[in-house]
Amino acid sequence: MFKPVTGGICAAQGFKAGGVHSGIRKNTSKKDLAMILCETGCNTAAVYTSNKVKGAPLILTKKHIGLNNKIHGLLCNSGNANTCNPNGMEIAQGCCKLAAEATGFKPEEFVIASTGVIGQPMSLVPFENGIPPLVQSLSADGSTSAAQAIMTTDTVEKEFAVEFSAGGKTCRLGAIGKGSGMINPNMATMLVFITTDAAVSQNALHQILSAEVKNSLNQISIDGDTSTNDMTILMANGLAGNEEITGENSPGYAEFCQALNSVCTMMARALAADGEGATKLLECKVEGAPTHSLANAIAKSVISSDLFKSAMFGADANWGRALCAIGYTPGDFSADKVSLIIQSPAGSVHVCENSAYKQYSEETAAKVLAEKEISILINLNDGGESGIAWGCDLTYDYVKINGDYRT
Amino acid sequence: MFKPVTGGICAAQGFKAGGVHSGIRKNTSKKDLAMILCETGCNTAAVYTSNKVKGAPLILTKKHIGLNNKIHGLLCNSGNANTCNPNGMEIAQGCCKLAAEATGFKPEEFVIASTGVIGQPMSLVPFENGIPPLVQSLSADGSTSAAQAIMTTDTVEKEFAVEFSAGGKTCRLGAIGKGSGMINPNMATMLVFITTDAAVSQNALHQILSAEVKNSLNQISIDGDTSTNDMTILMANGLAGNEEITGENSPGYAEFCQALNSVCTMMARALAADGEGATKLLECKVEGAPTHSLANAIAKSVISSDLFKSAMFGADANWGRALCAIGYTPGDFSADKVSLIIQSPAGSVHVCENSAYKQYSEETAAKVLAEKEISILINLNDGGESGIAWGCDLTYDYVKINGDYRT
Repeated sequence: MFKPVTGGICAAQGFKAGGVHSGIRKNTSKKDLAMILCETGCNTAAVYTSNKVKGAPLILTKKHIGLNNKIHGLLCNSGNANTCNPNGMEIAQGCCKLAAEATGFKPEEFVIASTGVIGQPMSLVPFENGIPPLVQSLSADGSTSAAQAIMTTDTVEKEFAVEFSAGGKTCRLGAIGKGSGMINPNMATMLVFITTDAAVSQNALHQILSAEVKNSLNQISIDGDTSTNDMTILMANGLAGNEEITGENSPGYAEFCQALNSVCTMMARALAADGEGATKLLECKVEGAPTHSLANAIAKSVISSDLFKSAMFGADANWGRALCAIGYTPGDFSADKVSLIIQSPAGSVHVCENSAYKQYSEETAAKVLAEKEISILINLNDGGESGIAWGCDLTYDYVKINGDYRT
Repeated sequence: MFKPVTGGICAAQGFKAGGVHSGIRKNTSKKDLAMILCETGCNTAAVYTSNKVKGAPLILTKKHIGLNNKIHGLLCNSGNANTCNPNGMEIAQGCCKLAAEATGFKPEEFVIASTGVIGQPMSLVPFENGIPPLVQSLSADGSTSAAQAIMTTDTVEKEFAVEFSAGGKTCRLGAIGKGSGMINPNMATMLVFITTDAAVSQNALHQILSAEVKNSLNQISIDGDTSTNDMTILMANGLAGNEEITGENSPGYAEFCQALNSVCTMMARALAADGEGATKLLECKVEGAPTHSLANAIAKSVISSDLFKSAMFGADANWGRALCAIGYTPGDFSADKVSLIIQSPAGSVHVCENSAYKQYSEETAAKVLAEKEISILINLNDGGESGIAWGCDLTYDYVKINGDYRT
């Protein structure tokens, strides 16, 4: 129904992107300012962090999207979160104004995001210096550059795109994202920007994005910390020429949802695998649950447990810690018929049945756990619903990175 | 109103204790079996983990206390949690039977606890071998020995006791405890055993203990993991001869509550300071909150944040992470007037006011954060209630300890 394509955030028609070093960061070799621009105005939806402390950029983005005018551009800096700053809103508005001046659009036609240290003084000077050359550099090949500019402790840029058909028209949907630390979405607590040339109404876009993140971007955790700044933004310019998708019964609705799910799932896995200090990607699949949301919650409990994450780092099949995490998940379910299998490309071990230990080979377990991608397969035997979540191991490097993040 | 005394769990009249190596652990130099015994039967109350996966010892203890007979003894092993074992209840019942045979009491007059690895085969043989010499060794000097026998990854034994007056009679209350990992009580997710010679009715005991743990033992977190096994047990034998405390209006009620609070608070601090791999004790005090329970929840959010804990390990005044943790605490409060001070024996720095940064000296901050006990003082300026919580920093050693706990 869809196929992976290259081009990331610029895979869809009409989108240009780029990234530059503007001086927000001291290290001149690290890009710190990204822009995505579209001459054709976009219907735009966003989901935001549930944190009560919110960055100024997030508040301004919500306001601009709420005006229901078409959005033309997205500006994102790394290196400073513009949060807990007395003049945060002034800075955010100044950025949109500078972006507007350099592109010919209006300030309220921009959305804006920031990521980095919270509560640090911030000035407009780097934006004054950086935005004009950034606009000059924008191109349809600029996805990777933009993806690099939004990185903080990420070790690799993250960009994905797919091609699909909606109502007989070929459409594309692509994304860039950054994550690494402070990721325990309750909405998306990372930055993920998604563009598509499919025509989708503002309402449908919002409904589809809100539903999607519950099963992908909200199902990852690096450290249980829900950030103040992070959001997912989806921009649709309609250039593919399909009949506008307005709801479930529109042609192309299912295909669009599938394409979005595929890109968000690839992004979720990539964000989890590149968690701060991570050496292993953990995937937890829960089956046999009374409800889908409980299955998702249980899967997320397991991949969020510091104890279980430490055991995975040590390649120790300490599955009792997964049982423990299942047991402290809030909700109404039975935890006495649990089956648990640990699986990787090297094989699988069935370590627990009826919530009690089951004979297994520690030798096989060691081989399974030596791999870089580990799946935890749980069956609650208490219903017919399933869920999934992604995380990473807890390592010395997580502590190292976060012990001196500011310096 | 009360003064600290020595003697731990045996400070109160009538209690003997001891600890031996029974063979549950391979390392013969590590004690693994503890007993507390009282010839006079005790009114006994307990609070249990909220985890849905519960150890067999916990289920049996709940049953024995529920019989409303007087409790005479407590048996606790370390090295194996007796949880997720197909024959867990059989083992737990067998232990109580062996304890009864060796002491002359009835099996249902014992409470029992286990701590260690989950989901490991377990046999009664070490108990058959260990209980008779353990009973022989019991003495009024045995608190430290018992405290050592219940340790897992704890680095020091934990015992506290106080003397107080209730209705004109001198009473004592003492405790031993173990903690270290998997501590995020929602009830007490550690083992804490408390004895007193004050006369307190069963109902009052339960009510007082349940209220107390909310402000002390439930307000600590090492890693956010709520264990399957842990509990707090309070045994009162009445030998002090005070008029029985049956409720708020009884003579000595307030004094007893204060004594219990003081021992539980000392224990909470000691458990947090000895968290796995910890190098620093973190204390977070929240003032100016709309409700006491919100103040407690916010304090616990801050000391539970992996990112903030890592910053404390690195002596980095990254207070934005505390603001972030305040912001993701569930509940109805305002997070835009927050003031935050970091304090230690070396001084204090006021880093945040009205939820925005405030000029401070990084040099002073470095000195403050170099200490072993750090206080985070938060004022929400959104009400008149306060709360407190204790935790520790997140270190390389936490990861090391938990990467190969079983081996």
